[in-house]
Amino acid sequence: MPVEIERKFLVVGDKWRPLVRSNQRYRQGYLSLGPGPTVRVRRAGPAAFVTIKGDGRIARPEFEYEIPVEDAEAMLANLCHRPLVEKTRHDVWDAGVLWHVDEFEGGNGGLVMAEVELSAADQPLRLPCWIGREVTDDPGYRNSELSRRPLHGRGDANT
Amino acid sequence: MPVEIERKFLVVGDKWRPLVRSNQRYRQGYLSLGPGPTVRVRRAGPAAFVTIKGDGRIARPEFEYEIPVEDAEAMLANLCHRPLVEKTRHDVWDAGVLWHVDEFEGGNGGLVMAEVELSAADQPLRLPCWIGREVTDDPGYRNSELSRRPLHGRGDANT
Repeated sequence: MPVEIERKFLVVGDKWRPLVRSNQRYRQGYLSLGPGPTVRVRRAGPAAFVTIKGDGRIARPEFEYEIPVEDAEAMLANLCHRPLVEKTRHDVWDAGVLWHVDEFEGGNGGLVMAEVELSAADQPLRLPCWIGREVTDDPGYRNSELSRRPLHGRGDANT
Repeated sequence: MPVEIERKFLVVGDKWRPLVRSNQRYRQGYLSLGPGPTVRVRRAGPAAFVTIKGDGRIARPEFEYEIPVEDAEAMLANLCHRPLVEKTRHDVWDAGVLWHVDEFEGGNGGLVMAEVELSAADQPLRLPCWIGREVTDDPGYRNSELSRRPLHGRGDANT
């Protein structure tokens, strides 16, 4: 079964910005927020995907399929839970490692989070200086949870 | 937005059996049972699909994508709500109309239900003699509900 192994961190400061190679705006929503599997519809520039993820923290089963953009737009407009999650994903290379740095908008505006995909959960990882607290094990920082409960509506938020 | 317009009926007796042109065994499960959109994984013989349906009774938004059989099997085994729904779908032609007659197994064994797809909700439809009570508007006969609450476990079942 395909599994995504990923660690997530809050981002501190702006020292990652000179390292950005490319970026892309994402709009995504959830057909299923969990508990249980999450089902995400994502519009990423000229492409669109439906992505199914199982439970788990650092390692989660993941199935992703490209779908027509017009299907994604119809599902985002009519079927997905609100609010949608909107963010810009920056591809950042630091010391030979590709980081996805997500700058969130709307109800999660101000949140900047970095993800790195690993080939094994215990793969050694050198953390750049702009990497802050690890949130891999904090369900509150899952994108599905950021859709269900945007940070600005939470009493307990600290970004 | 693609919409499935469908009426559903309980089936009475066996007069439909001589009219069967082909049949196929289905195994399906749900990643999301609703309320809200349902997300179904279906194995249908040599093929497999993920299908997203919105709310609605006779007319529901529907998006369907073919996926690799091994993905479907992994999701059915590991991610879908239990129990799975297992049934044989018979394609039945009667008076020029294609009916899907589903014979359910397991916790829904004994249930035989017929579906017909229409091009409009008010399309005239001649009902064959083997068609019984209409259940289009009865959420208890949705396949997602037959997965969540198989008929044999309900106190109020009457098939």
